[in-house]
Amino acid sequence: MNTRLLEIRQGILSKNDRLAQRLRQRFHDAGVLAVNLVSSPGTGKTALLERTLREMAPTYRVASLVGDLATENDAVRLARSGAPVRQIVTQGMCHLEAEMIESHLVGWDLADLDFLFIENVGNLVCPSSYDLGEDLRVVLLSVTEGEDKPLKYPPMFNSADVALITKMDLAGAVEFDRAAAYANLRAVRPDVTILETSAKTGAGVAAWIDWLVARRLNVEAVKR
Amino acid sequence: MNTRLLEIRQGILSKNDRLAQRLRQRFHDAGVLAVNLVSSPGTGKTALLERTLREMAPTYRVASLVGDLATENDAVRLARSGAPVRQIVTQGMCHLEAEMIESHLVGWDLADLDFLFIENVGNLVCPSSYDLGEDLRVVLLSVTEGEDKPLKYPPMFNSADVALITKMDLAGAVEFDRAAAYANLRAVRPDVTILETSAKTGAGVAAWIDWLVARRLNVEAVKR
Repeated sequence: MNTRLLEIRQGILSKNDRLAQRLRQRFHDAGVLAVNLVSSPGTGKTALLERTLREMAPTYRVASLVGDLATENDAVRLARSGAPVRQIVTQGMCHLEAEMIESHLVGWDLADLDFLFIENVGNLVCPSSYDLGEDLRVVLLSVTEGEDKPLKYPPMFNSADVALITKMDLAGAVEFDRAAAYANLRAVRPDVTILETSAKTGAGVAAWIDWLVARRLNVEAVKR
Repeated sequence: MNTRLLEIRQGILSKNDRLAQRLRQRFHDAGVLAVNLVSSPGTGKTALLERTLREMAPTYRVASLVGDLATENDAVRLARSGAPVRQIVTQGMCHLEAEMIESHLVGWDLADLDFLFIENVGNLVCPSSYDLGEDLRVVLLSVTEGEDKPLKYPPMFNSADVALITKMDLAGAVEFDRAAAYANLRAVRPDVTILETSAKTGAGVAAWIDWLVARRLNVEAVKR
């Protein structure tokens, strides 16, 4: 790409996108894999993240930012893992923005981290338009919310790198239709990686962590 | 209120609010109770509404509008009740607006209706700011999504006239904490009416319909 074309493209990027690019560069330089978790309210982002942080903490340097319209409850839950956690209160906004990430990283040395998890506001629409500088966007789909959601909220599912099917321990109770869920996820994003998890029983959490660790090694390999 | 003050207040109302007021007047003049259903994705708005329409249709004149970012799937489901149904596709927008309601009512004679149900886009943030001219705003909270949601999404729960706790058939499987749910709903809106329903078993649906019918009689009584 020649310099002029690059300049023109940068000219049309929004302020959020410019900030997100700056964050992405910082994460990359520090060797941090940044993961943005998005979903409906109540799919179990906090429960899965709490378990992920707890299981990763003995081996990896992990931290988390968590966004909500109101309350610090999720930060309190996540901090039980022992990992550094900060709450972002959006004051009614339905998504996180790159600027909020940047301002809440002040005082943390990214060189001390391997993984930064960002739990977005529970919302299947707004967060899809806001790049936070993450390496991976992870969308959660709980077995309790219906297999049709990818078709009804395509921008969110289309922009995700991996789909986690959560609350698998309830699959029987809600008569979860796995084939329909997979078909709908792949109708919206044909190449999406799909993993199944239960934060309650722990099933699938080790595979999810292995997948994250492999992704970080890929990023490190590219860097070298 | 004197005329000048009224003019000033109207001057600062947004376009959506003005359209919503016009709709509200039309609903009132025609004796239609308009009900706006809001919630997260996957709380069972469509399932509850399908059952509500089916149970009400032999006795009352019911119709429904249903909003989604994409697909006509919900309108197809709701139309199985035999009631008139129209899909509003928002093309990525995270809420319905009064203008969309108005344009999708064209060709329907409101005088032929007793109840109009509007199923909003599944989203616990954006729809709270958009008056659709409804008489009642109903927020659904499913037992599967966590008792903490009222605290984390206060504008939506604060602006609702009634809270329906849905998927009660799953309360045992998810260890639903009823006391916590009620306390959190009332922390955000102390006087909110709370009803418990299961679209699957039908439990609570008759009480919900009775409540709606009573509300319509109240509106009619005020009108006379």
